[in-house]
Amino acid sequence: MIAERTHERLTPELLYLLLGDPADFEAAIAGARAADLAEALVQLAPEAGGKVIAALPFDMAVQVLDEPELAHRRVDFIEHVPKAALGALVDAMSSDQQADLFRELPEKERAHLLALVDAPTREALTLLLRYPPKTAGGIMTTEYVSVPSTFTVEQALAYVSEVGRSKETIYTIYVLDPETHTLLHVVSLRDLMLADRTLPVLQCGNRRKPLEVPPTMGREDVARMISKYNLLAVPVVDDDGHVLGIVTVDDVIDAIVREQTEDVQKFGGMEALDEPYTQISFGAMIKKRAGWLCALFVSEMLTATAMQHFEGEISKAVVLAMFIPLVMSSGGNSGSQATSLIIRSLALREITVRDWWRVALRELPTGLTLGAILGVIGFVRIELWQRLHLFDYGHYHMLVAMTVGAALVGIVAFGSLAGSMLPFLLKRVGFDPASASAPFVATLVDVTGLIIYFTVAFIFLRGTLL
Amino acid sequence: MIAERTHERLTPELLYLLLGDPADFEAAIAGARAADLAEALVQLAPEAGGKVIAALPFDMAVQVLDEPELAHRRVDFIEHVPKAALGALVDAMSSDQQADLFRELPEKERAHLLALVDAPTREALTLLLRYPPKTAGGIMTTEYVSVPSTFTVEQALAYVSEVGRSKETIYTIYVLDPETHTLLHVVSLRDLMLADRTLPVLQCGNRRKPLEVPPTMGREDVARMISKYNLLAVPVVDDDGHVLGIVTVDDVIDAIVREQTEDVQKFGGMEALDEPYTQISFGAMIKKRAGWLCALFVSEMLTATAMQHFEGEISKAVVLAMFIPLVMSSGGNSGSQATSLIIRSLALREITVRDWWRVALRELPTGLTLGAILGVIGFVRIELWQRLHLFDYGHYHMLVAMTVGAALVGIVAFGSLAGSMLPFLLKRVGFDPASASAPFVATLVDVTGLIIYFTVAFIFLRGTLL
Repeated sequence: MIAERTHERLTPELLYLLLGDPADFEAAIAGARAADLAEALVQLAPEAGGKVIAALPFDMAVQVLDEPELAHRRVDFIEHVPKAALGALVDAMSSDQQADLFRELPEKERAHLLALVDAPTREALTLLLRYPPKTAGGIMTTEYVSVPSTFTVEQALAYVSEVGRSKETIYTIYVLDPETHTLLHVVSLRDLMLADRTLPVLQCGNRRKPLEVPPTMGREDVARMISKYNLLAVPVVDDDGHVLGIVTVDDVIDAIVREQTEDVQKFGGMEALDEPYTQISFGAMIKKRAGWLCALFVSEMLTATAMQHFEGEISKAVVLAMFIPLVMSSGGNSGSQATSLIIRSLALREITVRDWWRVALRELPTGLTLGAILGVIGFVRIELWQRLHLFDYGHYHMLVAMTVGAALVGIVAFGSLAGSMLPFLLKRVGFDPASASAPFVATLVDVTGLIIYFTVAFIFLRGTLL
Repeated sequence: MIAERTHERLTPELLYLLLGDPADFEAAIAGARAADLAEALVQLAPEAGGKVIAALPFDMAVQVLDEPELAHRRVDFIEHVPKAALGALVDAMSSDQQADLFRELPEKERAHLLALVDAPTREALTLLLRYPPKTAGGIMTTEYVSVPSTFTVEQALAYVSEVGRSKETIYTIYVLDPETHTLLHVVSLRDLMLADRTLPVLQCGNRRKPLEVPPTMGREDVARMISKYNLLAVPVVDDDGHVLGIVTVDDVIDAIVREQTEDVQKFGGMEALDEPYTQISFGAMIKKRAGWLCALFVSEMLTATAMQHFEGEISKAVVLAMFIPLVMSSGGNSGSQATSLIIRSLALREITVRDWWRVALRELPTGLTLGAILGVIGFVRIELWQRLHLFDYGHYHMLVAMTVGAALVGIVAFGSLAGSMLPFLLKRVGFDPASASAPFVATLVDVTGLIIYFTVAFIFLRGTLL
């Protein structure tokens, strides 16, 4: 609702048109929020976007550049921002977004931009760019509030009021040893506000050892920690106990949403796009999709090999071939259900790799029950069609129906079991369990499903049809 | 890492054992965090859990009961907490979690518990329980800080220090009209801390109209808004402009994670469980899975019907049957990729329903390209097996290979197109686009895939094999 309302007010076209008239432009963006401006900006061409950014009041331009939504377009836009203004704009950005910008820049242009920014920015960038973008070090910001442990609550509050403007958050204050600068205590602004002003900060708030993360921790784990303990920020601390930076809750929400996008895409049976669907190039998209599609296709060729083995059976009993897609797909479907359940449970840490047998003991009866349900439906369907003379499955229709029914029990049970075990197996051998996609499981189950089906057929139909 | 470290320290077994010795118990939980205690608690039996909660210091017991992680077990545990202590514990919980607790309670026990709590709690509950649990009204809390617009910054800060302890957050302060109590302005504690103390609160911070949501807004939309504008909380406001409560960023993270779990499970081809996999009963799990599985099975029966039509072709050319699983699965796989991309893009609002033709124009060439790649692989595979004498596909092997190759182009292109259009279609007719699961798409594509395959075969093999 809100998005739509602001969308009406601030379309990309309008934004660009207004550039011609400074007074109108100023009026249009006066009530705007940075996130809405960024949303409109990403739809503009590089040059137009650069012009809009250059025309914005300084503080607003910085806020817009800080929006993660803009991430994939920043490089396009800043090329068209006058060099004279660019350095100061980048200096004023928050350090995690500066690092993102530099990561997107081509090697050559990095040096150019690095020459435009000031020394503190360069220093922060050198630190942040050392860490991979999906780690705590890669998403942290260096703008946090720290006070020496010798401060009182009163002094700390005064200091926060003084330096707060330039910090990412002032709601968590890091108390450092005045000598070694190691992290001793974390206190919230809330604790400070509610405390006796003369108290030393070290005695304010909860005295537990502060929660902290190493710079190498994956962003998913950082997100889980912030969410579990309801934190607004978590300090990133090196081996010596020095605070390198902080990861804030809003960075973590972005990280959660991105991880989720990757997981959904992987579960759909492809590589994660890393870019919005609307912005990725045709070639990049083919590359991300063709790899898995070919791998699955080649694996699925085993079904052709299996079918070659059963060529004799098929030519003797063509009626069997008719139910192959039906029976096989049920295994894939039940497998897909089990996989999605287990991937998610693993991601939420409800279960760990060691719980695999507990899950197996659960999925086997589940799969047998579901298979029995489908088996009954399948049996009834064939017999019904036969009795209603909708189709003639031949003299041994009852045996064919029993074959389909019994095979379904086996295949659905196998599908549930295989689908639930695949994520464990992938995790065990060091892969991302989220790579256990629905198509992957279906492919896995298809080959086995064929073998189960023809084995059951052989048992039921030996001496009659086969 | 953290989780494991604390896990070692505080296992559920240990927790229960320690109950026998109050001194040991106190020592064990002294350094513990509420989230870790909750994590251990959920694994205990109802009676043991109730005993542990009753033995915790009051403040800690409240914090543990407030943990969303405990949500599905709260009802079990509180039955075993002495009635004398229960009322005060529930009164001290935050109002959104109180509401969750009451939602989980059976009708009969609700009245019992309602009699134990005090009047303000009863009042808040009456308000909160009016809204469905997946809306802003359903996840909001009523404990926010509000000040009249006549206050100065100084007065507001003093008031925050005074009442802050009992509020969910003190970092966002709601400025109300002293007469009508409508929301006039929202100011952050940061703004207050950095402002001149004599300034009226109404002139402090950004003067834009505050962002607000109606109580009926879905939790996903609330989450998107908090994340987009990097808010710590958003006010829930009724039609008359009165603040009903606030939704905080940590509630929203929980909501995002839950929505994601539901989406992954739906994409796997089942109903969302609504409970952790480890806690759901066998019967409930079968129910959540059997519905979709049966629906898919019944739809997939169309493949059997289609196959009946092609019975003649299959008996004439059994070799065609061998490639049915291979060719069909490729359509399902490319469809699954396209569906996962579009579901996610719709969820992130990168595209809207109106963009369907833009997506179709993109997926058609993508599908054709991917189909051509698989088609070439398929053609080569058949010819290679033939030339290497691995299998004899008969005299017309080249025509069979061409049939498979050409059918793959058509089927993969159709799969991509159908997979990408299904979420739009579902959304258009009012369903959740996330119901467009991988198995759903595969089923949809399977029937059409068969028809495409046999049509292509008819074109290529007419007069020879057929």
